[in-house]
Amino acid sequence: MPIIEDFAALRRLCTEVSVGDEAAAAAVVSRQARLTKPAGSLGRLEALVAWLARWQGRAEPALERVEVLVFAGNHGVVQQGVSPFPPEVTAQMVANYAVGGAAINQIAAVAGARLRVVPLRLDDPTGDMTDHPAMDEPAFLDAVRAGWDAVEPGTDLLCLGEMGIGNTTAAAALAAGLFGGGGRRWAGRGTGLDEAGLARKQAVVDAAVRRHAALAGDPLRLAAALGGRELAAILGATLAARHHGVPVLLDGFVCGAAVAPLRVLRPDGLDHAAAAHRSAEHGGAELLRELELEPLLDLGLRLGEASGAALAVPILRAALACHQGMATFGEAGVSDRPA
Amino acid sequence: MPIIEDFAALRRLCTEVSVGDEAAAAAVVSRQARLTKPAGSLGRLEALVAWLARWQGRAEPALERVEVLVFAGNHGVVQQGVSPFPPEVTAQMVANYAVGGAAINQIAAVAGARLRVVPLRLDDPTGDMTDHPAMDEPAFLDAVRAGWDAVEPGTDLLCLGEMGIGNTTAAAALAAGLFGGGGRRWAGRGTGLDEAGLARKQAVVDAAVRRHAALAGDPLRLAAALGGRELAAILGATLAARHHGVPVLLDGFVCGAAVAPLRVLRPDGLDHAAAAHRSAEHGGAELLRELELEPLLDLGLRLGEASGAALAVPILRAALACHQGMATFGEAGVSDRPA
Repeated sequence: MPIIEDFAALRRLCTEVSVGDEAAAAAVVSRQARLTKPAGSLGRLEALVAWLARWQGRAEPALERVEVLVFAGNHGVVQQGVSPFPPEVTAQMVANYAVGGAAINQIAAVAGARLRVVPLRLDDPTGDMTDHPAMDEPAFLDAVRAGWDAVEPGTDLLCLGEMGIGNTTAAAALAAGLFGGGGRRWAGRGTGLDEAGLARKQAVVDAAVRRHAALAGDPLRLAAALGGRELAAILGATLAARHHGVPVLLDGFVCGAAVAPLRVLRPDGLDHAAAAHRSAEHGGAELLRELELEPLLDLGLRLGEASGAALAVPILRAALACHQGMATFGEAGVSDRPA
Repeated sequence: MPIIEDFAALRRLCTEVSVGDEAAAAAVVSRQARLTKPAGSLGRLEALVAWLARWQGRAEPALERVEVLVFAGNHGVVQQGVSPFPPEVTAQMVANYAVGGAAINQIAAVAGARLRVVPLRLDDPTGDMTDHPAMDEPAFLDAVRAGWDAVEPGTDLLCLGEMGIGNTTAAAALAAGLFGGGGRRWAGRGTGLDEAGLARKQAVVDAAVRRHAALAGDPLRLAAALGGRELAAILGATLAARHHGVPVLLDGFVCGAAVAPLRVLRPDGLDHAAAAHRSAEHGGAELLRELELEPLLDLGLRLGEASGAALAVPILRAALACHQGMATFGEAGVSDRPA
């Protein structure tokens, strides 16, 4: 990673980015028109191949090296009673990933993807954002760097996700800080809050946003004050992917909030990232609208841990297989002229 | 297949069907509650495993033998100018399937499914339904039987699709005959009609429905008069699947119209069939509403040939992998109690 000494340096890294390989995308579109199917009849599958080509920077994209990265963090704000699960569950689930017992282990295997899990100082939760910034500048930049460093150049597709008891509160606060609307717009039931818990969580989000109101308009400082280590790492990984030519599949609500600063800093800042699915978590659909991302799947998932991102990988594999394997009208001797 | 001597015998076969294995489905739901994830957080993936269990008739469903069946037919109604492609393309595409050059070849491979294509008397198109029934009773029953016989007992999942120049006109006419609304509601651009072609197709659908208005209320006779051989075969295959304990993934608009008579004859007649995707063909979304089917995917496909059905297979594989491979809270030592 380039040296990032402060917020200003990170901001430059977020705004000085490639716009992708237009020629590679155009070559894909041109070939699609000659394949044995009515024009456009594979719908979004066609556009997805062009997207892969643009961001991999080659007219013949590949999906050999598909990676799933799950970042885990703990949150001081859990002391406000925003989750029905205790914070110990974050480390317990990291152990569960290590032995292959979680949903993402199974879905990554179906997707033909390698899974890596990166725990981020689980025994040192972030600050309680209703009182302090969740992270100061060095702590935030450390987490961003951990995400950046986890991305291996040469990866063909990167699925991003997270685990962290309390992190839907952080995500809701960050979304509220960036887009307005407060706790009622963004806070949801997370792992299963009841009515009273939800009301408490909404109030916590509102308090956090008020506490850091002076940062409004500065997306990266908001991400430090209202986010969490795993959210910062997802931002760093998404940024590294842009610089290394790696297309990204984003998971759900927390993941979307984590990368939202990139979209706010630059309108095309997430063009190399696709929303894998529409999370059922409250705020999930609303966040996709703010980010102007149209999800690939809408199956009611709200688990996190990159489960929705990995679930969408076979869609991309099918899209690419069609592009690579289909005959052209000429090759197949199929009439492509109106009768 | 049981001997089906006439419409009445087929109707009995459509209405005297199993309601699935409730105990197997309940066993799945019970296990889901103990897996290391917040309750319900895998959304529709959880319900899909219970659905597989119910219709395979076992608490531990499998996806070892996944089959894609594509039926192909030709249509006398093409002489009315309802398709921009000539009818020879049906046989040309069947040849393309045989050498692996079509979209479904690639998507079936990604899905880990075996593809079989069943051409149905391509050199003997059905009657022009604006003038005659597309098929008389023996011809219709022959096609239904071809579909039934193509289903191998012991199949774990069956993806159904079709190819046939002119068959979106047949599907639109059948949908209009069953559900009302005429050509404007149901006829779309198919493989790429222009405005004038679409208006002609709408008029053809209206003429066909008027010509066979006496059959209203008799779904099987409507399927014979307004359908086509590949549609009748899809109906037969879907019916065989119900009797053999094989869950079905339906492809798009034509496939949905083909099986609609089963839903009209019996409200739960399609409960063993899931809609793989929402077709972008005009009428596709409307048909799913009539059938009360919520699609798994919505990616703008309108190709047919079971492409959308096969595309959804990895979703089911991921759902089943989670069910089979995830640890329970107890096994993983993860706290499942509120803090």
